[in-house]
Amino acid sequence: MAQQRRVQLSTQRPTSTVCVLGTELSLDVCGSAPKDAVAFHVQGTPGVKLYVVHETQSVKLPSSVCRWPLAAGTEVLLAMDAPSKDVGDEKVRISYFREAGGVPVGRAMLYLTCVEVSLDTDAGRSGAVSRTLLDKATWTWGPDGHGAILLVNCDRDDPKAETLDNQDTAIRSYADLKDMSQMVLRTRGPRTIFTGHRLLLHVDFSDADKVGVFYGGNSIALEEYKHVLGGSKLAYTVKPSRHQEESIFYVEGLAFPDVGFSGLVAFHVTLLESPEKGLLETPIFTDTVVFRVAPWIMTPNTAAPLEVFVCSVDNNEDFVAAVGAMAEKTKCPLTICPLLENRQDRWIQDEVEFGYVQAPHKTFPVVFDSPRDRGLKDFPVKSILGPDFGYVARQAPEGASSLDSFGNLEVSPPVTVQGKEYPLGRILIGSSFPRFGGRRMAKAVKDFLVAQQVQAPVELFSDWLHVGHVDEFLSFVPAPDRKGFRLLLASPSACYQLLKEKQEEGFGEAVMFEGLKEVSKPTINEILANEGLRKFNNYVQSCINWNRDILKRALGLAESDILDIPQLFRGNVATGAEAFFPDMVNMLVLGRHLGIPKPFGPLVGGQCCLEERVRALLEPLGLTCTFIDDYFSYHVLSGEVHCGTNVRRKPFAFKWWHMVP
Amino acid sequence: MAQQRRVQLSTQRPTSTVCVLGTELSLDVCGSAPKDAVAFHVQGTPGVKLYVVHETQSVKLPSSVCRWPLAAGTEVLLAMDAPSKDVGDEKVRISYFREAGGVPVGRAMLYLTCVEVSLDTDAGRSGAVSRTLLDKATWTWGPDGHGAILLVNCDRDDPKAETLDNQDTAIRSYADLKDMSQMVLRTRGPRTIFTGHRLLLHVDFSDADKVGVFYGGNSIALEEYKHVLGGSKLAYTVKPSRHQEESIFYVEGLAFPDVGFSGLVAFHVTLLESPEKGLLETPIFTDTVVFRVAPWIMTPNTAAPLEVFVCSVDNNEDFVAAVGAMAEKTKCPLTICPLLENRQDRWIQDEVEFGYVQAPHKTFPVVFDSPRDRGLKDFPVKSILGPDFGYVARQAPEGASSLDSFGNLEVSPPVTVQGKEYPLGRILIGSSFPRFGGRRMAKAVKDFLVAQQVQAPVELFSDWLHVGHVDEFLSFVPAPDRKGFRLLLASPSACYQLLKEKQEEGFGEAVMFEGLKEVSKPTINEILANEGLRKFNNYVQSCINWNRDILKRALGLAESDILDIPQLFRGNVATGAEAFFPDMVNMLVLGRHLGIPKPFGPLVGGQCCLEERVRALLEPLGLTCTFIDDYFSYHVLSGEVHCGTNVRRKPFAFKWWHMVP
Repeated sequence: MAQQRRVQLSTQRPTSTVCVLGTELSLDVCGSAPKDAVAFHVQGTPGVKLYVVHETQSVKLPSSVCRWPLAAGTEVLLAMDAPSKDVGDEKVRISYFREAGGVPVGRAMLYLTCVEVSLDTDAGRSGAVSRTLLDKATWTWGPDGHGAILLVNCDRDDPKAETLDNQDTAIRSYADLKDMSQMVLRTRGPRTIFTGHRLLLHVDFSDADKVGVFYGGNSIALEEYKHVLGGSKLAYTVKPSRHQEESIFYVEGLAFPDVGFSGLVAFHVTLLESPEKGLLETPIFTDTVVFRVAPWIMTPNTAAPLEVFVCSVDNNEDFVAAVGAMAEKTKCPLTICPLLENRQDRWIQDEVEFGYVQAPHKTFPVVFDSPRDRGLKDFPVKSILGPDFGYVARQAPEGASSLDSFGNLEVSPPVTVQGKEYPLGRILIGSSFPRFGGRRMAKAVKDFLVAQQVQAPVELFSDWLHVGHVDEFLSFVPAPDRKGFRLLLASPSACYQLLKEKQEEGFGEAVMFEGLKEVSKPTINEILANEGLRKFNNYVQSCINWNRDILKRALGLAESDILDIPQLFRGNVATGAEAFFPDMVNMLVLGRHLGIPKPFGPLVGGQCCLEERVRALLEPLGLTCTFIDDYFSYHVLSGEVHCGTNVRRKPFAFKWWHMVP
Repeated sequence: MAQQRRVQLSTQRPTSTVCVLGTELSLDVCGSAPKDAVAFHVQGTPGVKLYVVHETQSVKLPSSVCRWPLAAGTEVLLAMDAPSKDVGDEKVRISYFREAGGVPVGRAMLYLTCVEVSLDTDAGRSGAVSRTLLDKATWTWGPDGHGAILLVNCDRDDPKAETLDNQDTAIRSYADLKDMSQMVLRTRGPRTIFTGHRLLLHVDFSDADKVGVFYGGNSIALEEYKHVLGGSKLAYTVKPSRHQEESIFYVEGLAFPDVGFSGLVAFHVTLLESPEKGLLETPIFTDTVVFRVAPWIMTPNTAAPLEVFVCSVDNNEDFVAAVGAMAEKTKCPLTICPLLENRQDRWIQDEVEFGYVQAPHKTFPVVFDSPRDRGLKDFPVKSILGPDFGYVARQAPEGASSLDSFGNLEVSPPVTVQGKEYPLGRILIGSSFPRFGGRRMAKAVKDFLVAQQVQAPVELFSDWLHVGHVDEFLSFVPAPDRKGFRLLLASPSACYQLLKEKQEEGFGEAVMFEGLKEVSKPTINEILANEGLRKFNNYVQSCINWNRDILKRALGLAESDILDIPQLFRGNVATGAEAFFPDMVNMLVLGRHLGIPKPFGPLVGGQCCLEERVRALLEPLGLTCTFIDDYFSYHVLSGEVHCGTNVRRKPFAFKWWHMVP
């Protein structure tokens, strides 16, 4: 429905007003009628389209009816087709008549100036601003959706700057401008009309702390760009140029969707009429556009790797070399975080999660910094944040627990669950089962993840583990068939079955941890005879089974989508579970290359029977298994290969705005 | 999809487990297979339903196939039909075979106990808890929707209590219990099974501050009811009684929907298995129910009045008497707030808004206390809050402005806008147009109103008024035709038209304010000749026109749904607009009886021409107009009849959960 403005007329004196292209004026014909008038006639110049609304019918003029009764509710509507060349160059005349009278008893004249005022964005999501017939004031999801997109300008295009690009009100480079979304104000019509009217660009009070708007006027010089809206600036008076019909504004996001912020931000341009000095202005037209701030998106193991991260600490040279060799196989650059920056903190998986933000005009990676904050605390801001590499963080004012480390934050590959599509997968986080005093992820982190909407998080039960991360019992690997992946679950029962099989084959005296100095070396027979270990692993198995059920339902998986990776755990009620031998599901996945913690299982015929079993499960999927010795460098410190590495991956080909959350 | 739990078997020793009615067990047949086994056979006692899932087909047993290949992904699923009488009274046996072997090479036995564990609510919205096939873990809107409803227990059933019922953790009366929603835990099966298992009722951490749960065990004595969940209590161990299959919990809401709280709250009951002392328990079954906290709902002028409120202050006896007479006509009780409680604050419309909350089992009124807090500050808590009369308030930490008074908070009758139904109407609030320093409603109040979802607020432009309330320029009255109501808008142009008509009829020397002492008495001629007044009213008219357009679009109104009530305003840029004569749209609507501020318009033929015109507009709708003299008691203090009264009205017949927001 077009915007409509009521205009009062007078038979005493002519009325002048502005009609904005695309809107209607509703003339108060009854309000200006002389006392005895019972009918009226209305006539306009060719540029004016006139309609009479009479008893709920709308009749376009000229019609065969030339006089209309002055009944209550009778309206004259008008619209105009093109901006005026001069002020008041179109007219409407209303003549009033008495009963059966042939001579008008009064006339009301209306002088009209048509102007075009339009705020436009990339509502069609093509990567460029265009005029559109789409409803600019709404934002819809899905392949047929519309509405513009805004990026949180959270990178640092100027390496010398101290803060993120959106934490100041200056434009330091054209690269900075390119991260922003354009918003174009088009004004056409006689320029003199804009001296008696004012154009105000404004943002709602509740949105003002979420955005920044920059404007360079007619200039393209960087220093001419001024911060005109956002923060305490709620409105900006635009002076339409005499020479240009378009004013280009650059919009940046300041905040990601979160509790209390849906991500939607509206901007308005309002035309204010100021009849004369000393009287207040009144709004006569508003155009509204809506942006959605792009969510932060995680990438699953099945996405192609772009950059591998590992820390160099004391005595982990072999591990770094092994990871480097894997990276080389996949032609993926390796970034080694030096000791000076990691301060002996090797758990780079736990400090950050790599994701990205995307708009039709721009995509860049964004690192999510966990509230964990150990030795690697400063690494994300100092060394990852940079040109076209954004940064976001959440704190845990209640105090961070081990469950706030991002080894406890994973994402599944794309899935479909009972007809509902998750084309960007679902986030998986570990939580406590509601026991008194259980650990859980910080509220601010969980709220942030939920608010992104596009990867609806699933809570798993991970607090039974000493460290408590989901990557201790699950992983995803690519597969050529079925859903394109397999879910790997650590499985004590699969491990017991394997060891029993080997015992029955006569290898009961084969020992574990062969070749590891100062590590006690139990035999298969000893492990199978250890009733305490078996009971504890039964408990572990039931915890993993609980998660298996949640995962099957939340990701729509069948048993054939799951592979059980033999694994034993040890521990007790007080300390929680830890891997008994290097935790094989805690692996690094780079395309078809898997870097798996070397389990040091019993040698059977010179072969580690655990490695052999894992190869037998994974190689038929076209995967290559590299077993990496992390025993002393990571395993004994309660982590493994996955905990000690991190991967920036390729964004999804699927555009997030094409989904329906 | 039924909950499914993975169970590991063994050929070494029998396995015992619990199967919860309505869930499935997934038997790990491959995991317990002896080394050379290639096929299996599975058999169960009559109470066990068995399925083999083989190559994505699910076959119910007994089938003609008696041996199944042990392929990866082959699953045995089982379900049970009725709770067991004794522990382990049903069995499943799996026999494993070698290639072409007729004799089993191993057998795995599973002893099963079926128990029923079910958490139920009034998910069907009938007013009573019932077993349901509806998905209890989801909540849907609409006539076919499902999901239970919770009331914020914000009344004070015990008049001697100091706080709201939901601000303590005690049950003081059966009336208090009746405001709560029931949640029933059903447990059936051999009682001894619950000694080796634990039943935990729990609430998510993020919901715990929104609810309170009380439980009286087998007792119905009030003092036995204990606060078991909510606040810092996240979990409660339920001991199933030997004699009763049902445990009844009473749930109260603590908070209305608001920013960061959708209104949805989930409760879970989890069955924990504790295999033996010293080992941790593991969850084996969870049932989840979801409640939505009922929103606070406003009632429009078209709803039947139930109670009229007015303040008794110095020198307003006549006004109180006039309001009393109107209340009597509509057989509506009148509550007079005495001087002691209002401390000379007569603006009872501004201090509170009456609304209600509704669940299938209970409905009660709730007064919303504004952050205005003048003389009437304590009246809502002291005199309105009470048994089955709730209370809610929001503060304005940024400081309250005049726009926070609830004369600036109205609600339309039910409307349909371009096919979208608002069966409870839409809330209307006045705001500033974005001028620097404009006043606006407190964020906490606006956020609260938006969060209720069912009466989607519309923001109007009211800051052009000195006081700045929407009830200064609009009202709704019932009508027998069209949409069931008319929108009344104050109209300077209608007033000028009327006065000019009277001037032309020869009454130019008729004076306003006849009979009012010490009030200057302008003639029609003088008013029409006052160019300053005319210009200011043109400005006022354009402000009202702007709102007219918003209202037409937001409420789906046609011109015929609007009546223009003649009215003049005075003022200037600095002070804003005030009514020039008593503001007629600022009326009290009690059914078909309207209490309208007496305008003291020019007398024409002994009749006030303003009253005459208003009668001519409203009486054809079957309405009765009573003009109440509020000149010295309210008008000169910048308010009128509506500002000085308030009405509690009948809740909508339409149930809010039947709508789709």
